[in-house]
Amino acid sequence: MAVNLPLPQAADLKPVRGVQLGWAEAGIRKADRKDVLVLTVPEGTAVAGVFTRNRFCAAPVQVCREHLAAGKGIRAIVVNTGNANAGTGEPGLAASRATCDALAGQLGVAPQQILPFSTGVILEPLPVDRLVAGLPQALGRLAEDHWLQAAEAIMTTDTQPKAASRTITLGGKTVTLTGISKGAGMIRPNMATMLGFIATDAAVAQPVLQQLVKYAADHSFNSITIDGDTSTNDSFVLLATGQSGAALIDSESHADYAVLRDAVTDLAQELAQMIVRDGEGATKLMTIRVEQGQSVAECRQVAYAVAHSPLVKTAFYASDPNLGRILAAVGYAGVDDLDVDRVNLWLDDVWVAKDGGRNPDYREEDGQRVMQQAEITVRIALGRGQAQATVWTCDFSHEYVSINADYRS
Amino acid sequence: MAVNLPLPQAADLKPVRGVQLGWAEAGIRKADRKDVLVLTVPEGTAVAGVFTRNRFCAAPVQVCREHLAAGKGIRAIVVNTGNANAGTGEPGLAASRATCDALAGQLGVAPQQILPFSTGVILEPLPVDRLVAGLPQALGRLAEDHWLQAAEAIMTTDTQPKAASRTITLGGKTVTLTGISKGAGMIRPNMATMLGFIATDAAVAQPVLQQLVKYAADHSFNSITIDGDTSTNDSFVLLATGQSGAALIDSESHADYAVLRDAVTDLAQELAQMIVRDGEGATKLMTIRVEQGQSVAECRQVAYAVAHSPLVKTAFYASDPNLGRILAAVGYAGVDDLDVDRVNLWLDDVWVAKDGGRNPDYREEDGQRVMQQAEITVRIALGRGQAQATVWTCDFSHEYVSINADYRS
Repeated sequence: MAVNLPLPQAADLKPVRGVQLGWAEAGIRKADRKDVLVLTVPEGTAVAGVFTRNRFCAAPVQVCREHLAAGKGIRAIVVNTGNANAGTGEPGLAASRATCDALAGQLGVAPQQILPFSTGVILEPLPVDRLVAGLPQALGRLAEDHWLQAAEAIMTTDTQPKAASRTITLGGKTVTLTGISKGAGMIRPNMATMLGFIATDAAVAQPVLQQLVKYAADHSFNSITIDGDTSTNDSFVLLATGQSGAALIDSESHADYAVLRDAVTDLAQELAQMIVRDGEGATKLMTIRVEQGQSVAECRQVAYAVAHSPLVKTAFYASDPNLGRILAAVGYAGVDDLDVDRVNLWLDDVWVAKDGGRNPDYREEDGQRVMQQAEITVRIALGRGQAQATVWTCDFSHEYVSINADYRS
Repeated sequence: MAVNLPLPQAADLKPVRGVQLGWAEAGIRKADRKDVLVLTVPEGTAVAGVFTRNRFCAAPVQVCREHLAAGKGIRAIVVNTGNANAGTGEPGLAASRATCDALAGQLGVAPQQILPFSTGVILEPLPVDRLVAGLPQALGRLAEDHWLQAAEAIMTTDTQPKAASRTITLGGKTVTLTGISKGAGMIRPNMATMLGFIATDAAVAQPVLQQLVKYAADHSFNSITIDGDTSTNDSFVLLATGQSGAALIDSESHADYAVLRDAVTDLAQELAQMIVRDGEGATKLMTIRVEQGQSVAECRQVAYAVAHSPLVKTAFYASDPNLGRILAAVGYAGVDDLDVDRVNLWLDDVWVAKDGGRNPDYREEDGQRVMQQAEITVRIALGRGQAQATVWTCDFSHEYVSINADYRS
């Protein structure tokens, strides 16, 4: 029961020159479902990524970091679903390396030119034999117009594939950006989300791309939460093939940088919000906007306290304007010198709390009206500065409990 | 569906010399239910309390702090349910003061000798007229053997009253301690819980009692969580009438101090665990014990990360040993230099994760066996020090969502 999440159409997903995608049904966890994705890029492609800060980071995340650091130039990405290869120790690392070795051999490149990703159940051994056996099928299907199937191949508890495209013009050249993401639970990305990929045919120097991926992640995947659980496998990767013919963006002061940055960020926000819209059991999308803070950090702290409160989330599920729960969360968010008499709260256009107490003009039926919408903005003004931050989240429903109580069965 | 929570019997709740309790059905929110409690103590009673750290602390909490600071000697406590009198601004403060004025007038004491408490819905005006009108009924029922009715009078979403007693001997004198508590949701006390009261006829000097209440709170109410939501009204109050005839405990080095402290703490733990056992929708009680940390603070941080994870809580609800979710929570708990290769995890006696990965000897059926119990200990060894901490929590069920989606209706 995703919130205003239209099924992406293959025709809307624009191929990115140089990027090919293929998939396999390798039977990693269940038979007859797409569970392996291979994405290849041409020589000279710049690749940058951000990864989970969970200390129990998965084996493939460790291998990704090593291979990016090796600097040999990335040529392919391989993703499996059904198993996260996390909490798997040395055998997990070996399985991830074996996957890279096998794919590298078939592509005629070095193992360090492969980035591996896994998503699924934690603490179970990766069935690497089945994964490797599926690679030839995926390679046989490589094509530029397979973005929709690629989005399908990385789904776990997602109810539908997540993908979108943007087109911009840089120096007279048409530049395409297409991205895919997945995730519906264990979502409170800290650095990036599990998993997001955006490819573009813009030409971007590696260090600039690294800045750009960080900026885009902070304004998209790093600003969403479903259940507050930071995954072991969060990864967001940006690939720039340079095949659009547009000029190389070699610094952040390049005239084209801001245009590309904003397009990537916009696309990343759409992909990130798709994850929230498809949050496990979600019936509502809430935008939590905190303003008038002393710093972005404290605005985010307050926004996450509200976004994680099970009491707030269940009240939204019930369309019940039990809005004192929001004030309670603001109060325990950890801003120790908060003057609550300066706090104001709006639900969309309805002014609920004024100067720390109930707005005398607030009428329950106005709150009720907004609460019944599928998309709601909670705006909190702290009255202590100029900073602001926005976090997107969803409500907490019976369905969330059902999904997570049954996930492995 | 409380977890191993026997209904307290009136005969098991021992009167505390000098403490009288009466209740009223004042119709604060609903008709014909106990919703006001008055508890009186004799002159010379020492009273100490700890209160919520939520910045949006309720009006009665502010008044309690003022009245304790006034130092005139507390003579009565008045509690209403059905309305938290929080987020109510100046009118809320005035309502709380009016309650104290009315009760003080009827008891012939000063308003500063009354401590007021409220619990219920936030952001709605307190119906102070109905509360005041109910006071004579409560005073008419004052008696020493009304502890069970007192526990009933402070319930909100609690499924049953919470009360217990202890008896100790100090210098040959029998000393009694009896306490009551309430709470089932918005429970992650930070300082104390909403609401706990313990009375004793021990004689304790005021500054010593303040130390004692802090110690007991930290080891009981401040170590439980249901949903991570710190209430606006959390309060834990300890009253010592001195009428047992036991010697005055005038310092922490007094021979009787440790005996009384341990008895209070033990009773407070039982009352706090009753709250978790009666957690909204709870079907399981989990004891999260984190060992081998560098500090108690980091052990608590890890324990709370596990205890708050909706994914962990729903897995326990399902009796599903999806134990990678626990490792993921340990990993994102914020211990930045955690060496995951030194982390070990047990479920009761079952060794699940060894040196950061799945224990090769772990068998799914062993995990499954423990997960089916109603009470489970999760033991996490961090492998980096000598500190430890314990937190008690419950699982996350369909019933939790139902209760909180329907609470106001």
